[in-house]
Amino acid sequence: MTETTGLTLLEEHRAHGGRVMFYEHASSVLGLPARFGVFLPPAAEQGGKVPVVYALAGLTCTQETFLIKATALAEAARLGVALVTPDTSPRGAGIEGENTDWDLGTGAGFYLDATRQPWAQHYRMGSYIAQELPLLVEAALPLDGARRGIMGHSMGGHGALVHGLQAPLFWKSISAFAPVVHPSVVPWGKKALSTYLGPDHAAWRAHDAVCLLEDGYTHPAPILVDTGLADQFLQRELQPWHLVTAAEKAGQVLICREHEGYDHSYWFVQSFVADHLRHHAGLLGA
Amino acid sequence: MTETTGLTLLEEHRAHGGRVMFYEHASSVLGLPARFGVFLPPAAEQGGKVPVVYALAGLTCTQETFLIKATALAEAARLGVALVTPDTSPRGAGIEGENTDWDLGTGAGFYLDATRQPWAQHYRMGSYIAQELPLLVEAALPLDGARRGIMGHSMGGHGALVHGLQAPLFWKSISAFAPVVHPSVVPWGKKALSTYLGPDHAAWRAHDAVCLLEDGYTHPAPILVDTGLADQFLQRELQPWHLVTAAEKAGQVLICREHEGYDHSYWFVQSFVADHLRHHAGLLGA
Repeated sequence: MTETTGLTLLEEHRAHGGRVMFYEHASSVLGLPARFGVFLPPAAEQGGKVPVVYALAGLTCTQETFLIKATALAEAARLGVALVTPDTSPRGAGIEGENTDWDLGTGAGFYLDATRQPWAQHYRMGSYIAQELPLLVEAALPLDGARRGIMGHSMGGHGALVHGLQAPLFWKSISAFAPVVHPSVVPWGKKALSTYLGPDHAAWRAHDAVCLLEDGYTHPAPILVDTGLADQFLQRELQPWHLVTAAEKAGQVLICREHEGYDHSYWFVQSFVADHLRHHAGLLGA
Repeated sequence: MTETTGLTLLEEHRAHGGRVMFYEHASSVLGLPARFGVFLPPAAEQGGKVPVVYALAGLTCTQETFLIKATALAEAARLGVALVTPDTSPRGAGIEGENTDWDLGTGAGFYLDATRQPWAQHYRMGSYIAQELPLLVEAALPLDGARRGIMGHSMGGHGALVHGLQAPLFWKSISAFAPVVHPSVVPWGKKALSTYLGPDHAAWRAHDAVCLLEDGYTHPAPILVDTGLADQFLQRELQPWHLVTAAEKAGQVLICREHEGYDHSYWFVQSFVADHLRHHAGLLGA
């Protein structure tokens, strides 16, 4: 597989009648080695291509986190949906300060292309998610690029909303757990956007789901968003009400659910992940 | 809660309509602080007590591993079964060499009471599992000690089989994933039993599921055991055929399933955990 596709298989495990795999490849977009995970459902072994949902993890996570902690595999196997889990940033770019803060640099790529130095060369998770990774993995595995969805948690929920709204023909379904919906106005987001993109707020709007909706970007499918009301970041970083308001004004159908007592953790994500997978499967015709 | 029960709540998360909690307490049996996890299903919040399954993890694991990696909560919530997850050994006993090997000492208590020095004072996971932990947690939480099952993975599968066979009135249902069934004859087991119990093989028999069956210990309920045929430890450490033979001779009903392509990991465990929970729920009248 290495020679024909450029993918090196690091690990493979049978699971739920399908397979979990972790790969490494030389990313031309990132200019560094990159890793990602895949779950192929049993249906992928019967010939033909299966729909695929890309799952973007949050701050400090890796390509392993969602596959291990979201407990998504049983339902994905049942529905016949594949999962692809990218890393959350480039690794080893060698930028000073890259590993100092947990909410910036390594583990915190925010799924965008940095334009500011010294980040611009490697911190290009935007193009990696929008182009390089899907094309690479869908060429190598039986995944149907015409039935492709995107979901994410926290920073990854931001990534899912932004990428989905920017390219609705590419991403046919969108959902998010506890997403950062309006990074332009919250601490995590302001820190990342100013560092990666510079001080000009106009450049931030394409990387902010609320701004995208305000600027006329909508998605033809309903977007599913779940948030826990005991989420420790709800008031400071998430502020989902901005998304509700912007969606209403834009005419975007949004299913925004609030869950009493649930926090920001993967215990919350795993409690509702089956609903999200069914949301995607329904829209993708799985 | 600390004052009345001796339990300190370290973490609590809402999950699947129930709650995941991690506790610490001063274990009198171990002579050290000990931690464990609990999942209470939604049914536990409606008054009345729920059946409970103790899940024992394998080498190198902690009280967190099964709850995070086995993806058991959705089905446990649905069935109304609680889960309790002990640690795999005492921590911080201060014994020389305790942290040198991954298969001995810390993370490798083998769910028995050591009789040999310097282990005998603290390495008493046998009495901890058989007595202290169940009585403590069932006094503090709405768990029904009359409907108590035990399951485990690898070293924890050994623990589940041995404890279940030794005390069938205490443990009403038993299951295991990839268990060490005959520690007296395999490397992990011989190392642990000789270190903790000394060279006299007669003393090992009470800590070996195959020997227990040979010595007349059986359980009235069917025992469920799953093993992966691609398990990297199958030939060297697990050797499930010894259990099949001993169960046949003893008249023990054993459901021993083999799964093509599955390895020793939690990807295997999670693929069949719902079956195990249903096995326990059926026997416990959940």
